[in-house]
Amino acid sequence: MLTLFFSPGACSLASHIALIEAGVPFELKRLKFAENEQRSPEYLKVNPKGRVPALVTEKGTLTETPALLIYIAQLVPEKNLAPLDDAFALAELQAFNSYIASTVHVAHAHGRRGSRWADEQSSFDDMHRKVPQTMSDCFRLIEDDFLKGPWVMGDQFTVADIYLFVMEDWLKGDRVDIADFPRVRDHYERMKARPAVQQALASEAAA
Amino acid sequence: MLTLFFSPGACSLASHIALIEAGVPFELKRLKFAENEQRSPEYLKVNPKGRVPALVTEKGTLTETPALLIYIAQLVPEKNLAPLDDAFALAELQAFNSYIASTVHVAHAHGRRGSRWADEQSSFDDMHRKVPQTMSDCFRLIEDDFLKGPWVMGDQFTVADIYLFVMEDWLKGDRVDIADFPRVRDHYERMKARPAVQQALASEAAA
Repeated sequence: MLTLFFSPGACSLASHIALIEAGVPFELKRLKFAENEQRSPEYLKVNPKGRVPALVTEKGTLTETPALLIYIAQLVPEKNLAPLDDAFALAELQAFNSYIASTVHVAHAHGRRGSRWADEQSSFDDMHRKVPQTMSDCFRLIEDDFLKGPWVMGDQFTVADIYLFVMEDWLKGDRVDIADFPRVRDHYERMKARPAVQQALASEAAA
Repeated sequence: MLTLFFSPGACSLASHIALIEAGVPFELKRLKFAENEQRSPEYLKVNPKGRVPALVTEKGTLTETPALLIYIAQLVPEKNLAPLDDAFALAELQAFNSYIASTVHVAHAHGRRGSRWADEQSSFDDMHRKVPQTMSDCFRLIEDDFLKGPWVMGDQFTVADIYLFVMEDWLKGDRVDIADFPRVRDHYERMKARPAVQQALASEAAA
């Protein structure tokens, strides 16, 4: 049995949705960020980074969303959640996921997690002010260059769509109007219509 | 023929070394960051992100170091540059690479690229001051938890070692003494002894 450590609405939502899409059995363990449970001695034994997601498997614990998404896709190759047999297409998907992890998620994080990279309140305020611009810059590239349509990789739904959905879901809180990016907005609507997405959102809201 | 766009000493060095280790033919194209060539209209057609690395292949252009490293490993599976046939081990390697891309490289970037996330000089100065702490925190985790030894993944040299080497090579400029992390320091020395690393460094210094 797989166990996913998550916090509601955090980037762990991507792995949560992917597990449901994959149809593999798993259990959820919520970490209460408000109580700093992600930094508790018990959890640091699971994931010394003190972050979510962490996926506990029979072989050990895995972390980092791009790694988890490909791993989950590999558990059920028949579901084609990633182009596992095409090195170039897989690299395109990985480039998309890596861009989200190292640029889009990082841009978002400067809105509330400035203390990761600076110490002064004035710096946090400065970072917070810039988030709508940096997130819009990211989504301009996604809208114009990366989202092939209807799905990220074209006709085939993949784990990249799930990861993109989580970023789309953060846009409102980042003071960006998704309507500025019509193809992204349509993708977001398509994602919200998927039963796996609805199940994951309901499950995290009730946790 | 593959073409790698790079800037000397940037994270493109990882893909450069990986291509030499793989033994596949490629050509190099240097971008002069001092002349802002990475933002030129010509290069933005290659890579709309305006960053390095970009690897031009017969099928199209690939970006993002974690994607390129796995792609290069897949070009020469017989060289075992990644555990391509073991989903769990591959996910461990990907988690390591993803951590470097989205946490370690990002921590480093706050030393000189603060304008990505803020607008005030006082914020840039604040970010710059914190880099030794954030990079040390990252390398404490790598030293204690992630570097299995002698290589990142244990006995098998992989592309993760190459990516780690680039971060190790940045530590001095980030005002971190690598001697604080003896296992990392030994890994760095092992890497510098590899002919592929020496060849890449010499090639970038002469470019």
